[in-house]
Amino acid sequence: MSFEDGIRKVVPYVAGEQPADRNIIKLNTNENPYPPAPGVQTALRELADRSAELRLYPDMNAAPLTAALAKKYGLDPEQIYVGVGSDDVLSMCFLTFFNTGKPILFPDITYSFYDVWADLYRIPYIQVPLDENFDICADGYLRDNGGVIFPNPNAPTGVEADPQTVEKIIAGNPGSIVIVDEAYVDFGARSVLPLLDRYENLIVVQTFSKSRAMAGMRIGFAMASPGLIRALKDVKFSFNSYTMNLPSILCGAEAVKDDGYFREITAKIVSAREDFEEKLRGMGFVFRNSKSNFVFARHPDISGDELFEKLRGKNICVRHFGRPRIREYLRITIGTPAQMEAVTHALKEILEER
Amino acid sequence: MSFEDGIRKVVPYVAGEQPADRNIIKLNTNENPYPPAPGVQTALRELADRSAELRLYPDMNAAPLTAALAKKYGLDPEQIYVGVGSDDVLSMCFLTFFNTGKPILFPDITYSFYDVWADLYRIPYIQVPLDENFDICADGYLRDNGGVIFPNPNAPTGVEADPQTVEKIIAGNPGSIVIVDEAYVDFGARSVLPLLDRYENLIVVQTFSKSRAMAGMRIGFAMASPGLIRALKDVKFSFNSYTMNLPSILCGAEAVKDDGYFREITAKIVSAREDFEEKLRGMGFVFRNSKSNFVFARHPDISGDELFEKLRGKNICVRHFGRPRIREYLRITIGTPAQMEAVTHALKEILEER
Repeated sequence: MSFEDGIRKVVPYVAGEQPADRNIIKLNTNENPYPPAPGVQTALRELADRSAELRLYPDMNAAPLTAALAKKYGLDPEQIYVGVGSDDVLSMCFLTFFNTGKPILFPDITYSFYDVWADLYRIPYIQVPLDENFDICADGYLRDNGGVIFPNPNAPTGVEADPQTVEKIIAGNPGSIVIVDEAYVDFGARSVLPLLDRYENLIVVQTFSKSRAMAGMRIGFAMASPGLIRALKDVKFSFNSYTMNLPSILCGAEAVKDDGYFREITAKIVSAREDFEEKLRGMGFVFRNSKSNFVFARHPDISGDELFEKLRGKNICVRHFGRPRIREYLRITIGTPAQMEAVTHALKEILEER
Repeated sequence: MSFEDGIRKVVPYVAGEQPADRNIIKLNTNENPYPPAPGVQTALRELADRSAELRLYPDMNAAPLTAALAKKYGLDPEQIYVGVGSDDVLSMCFLTFFNTGKPILFPDITYSFYDVWADLYRIPYIQVPLDENFDICADGYLRDNGGVIFPNPNAPTGVEADPQTVEKIIAGNPGSIVIVDEAYVDFGARSVLPLLDRYENLIVVQTFSKSRAMAGMRIGFAMASPGLIRALKDVKFSFNSYTMNLPSILCGAEAVKDDGYFREITAKIVSAREDFEEKLRGMGFVFRNSKSNFVFARHPDISGDELFEKLRGKNICVRHFGRPRIREYLRITIGTPAQMEAVTHALKEILEER
């Protein structure tokens, strides 16, 4: 027997390209084109002055960050759980809440890590098809299950579920935890947060990586009843007590406090998205209106593959998923107005060259 | 059925107390009494100037940090894996390497998370007893197994295994991965790193939380053959691609580069430990010489419980584990010479009061 027999076999993840060339227009990983709130810079300077504190373990409960989030969202600090990006938070939710042995339910076209975490924790799952317009249909989620999760707006479609559908799924599953993954909610969609008071089975997950322009700091968070947050912390602390480092706790708190800046940059992105959607329509692209910081579109005259390659040839990086139902689509992150103008120009050229 | 049926049941972890009162002498979680290397402060200032970069996802491979570690330890960057503290690294090693279904082996008295991770990933395990002097005996590890892990120096005993024992365990298990957890190695113990060239089944794990005075930054790392590191990354990236945030990557790299400072503070701690051990001996304490940044000691005339409480009453926080074989012992972190003098004084008072 060799020691290699015990090594776990996985399909390695292929992340969106992170080009080193600064001339490339990078619209492939839904990053924010604007810097984080100015308070983040101040917090880093202050941390430099107190860097001796780094010798100590950080606060397990990340109190300054949790308190800032509680205040912003009108919740109790005991209703907030923070983690190393929303991937960490979601993965911990799978581990904590999906233990009945019954299959969990999520859309067939959705965030690509749900099936990975289910496999990792040996949770059976059923992928519920979106309808032909990429809409989530409540009926598919009203069957016996071990839990439900879906993003709203959905990824990579950018489509927002209507609030009635969302509530029907939550209300129709009193025996299951329902996780609404709101990674992209701040770009014009309606959050399910107001329902938290009425449904004890609801967990809302958000992230600092998109609307707060802090992908490099790795912060995500869950909001739910104190009981569910306690369960999440118990599981997390039982095997890895300290994961939020001091810079993320302090800088995250400062970012949350600056609501004006947050509104300003999200409004700019929404406006750039609407302009870009108008241009896309004019060029004959097919897509659902997005409520996220990206547009998911196809063109009837050119394949997703070809369009992806031609944009790459013009130094524009977008995302293409070679999967069933969506292989003709590109996911284009909304950047600055100047970047979107460059993309529009490139798309026009590509279409005219044909 | 209630949604609560699917919630994972765990025994919540009880961490070492983190007292808010700054007058307390905190010697309970093996933190370093000195600040991180000066370069860490500089790196935070520079990051403040470039805080706009936080909008981007960090480098998955944490290249600047990996490169600095490779250079310091004379390895190839492909032989280094970094994670969010050594808990994150070790947990990922369990998940990646211990998949044969056979029991893994670790000491009966050892780091308290090994059995937790084994339970979490449903890995069977056997706890191999230390001998009556708290020494690891190679023979217990030379049986059919699914992997081996032990700390060297061991925690919470502080005892270093002799190099022959360590090599015997590694050489005797060509069919298993052997992980040597060197969290405390920099305080005078001999690292197994020189054996990496000769044993393909060896993984060495270290941390920034102790000797590099950066518990608040959460950085740990594994060193092994490129093949094992590749396997570790494949598993990790398959379900959580980005966990090392930009501050940890940049500050970690600067800390590693300053070897002079590293040697200076570890030498100070070793010297304070040797002085303290002499005082303990003088007071009649029983302990093995430590090669870590703590001393694990008992006194024949007073129970571990009582001594712990009495020190706490004098505003000195140490660690007491209420477990078989070690309940009469206290684990006392080595702080500054002034702190160790205060502890010595307190211990003398407690013993004289009896």
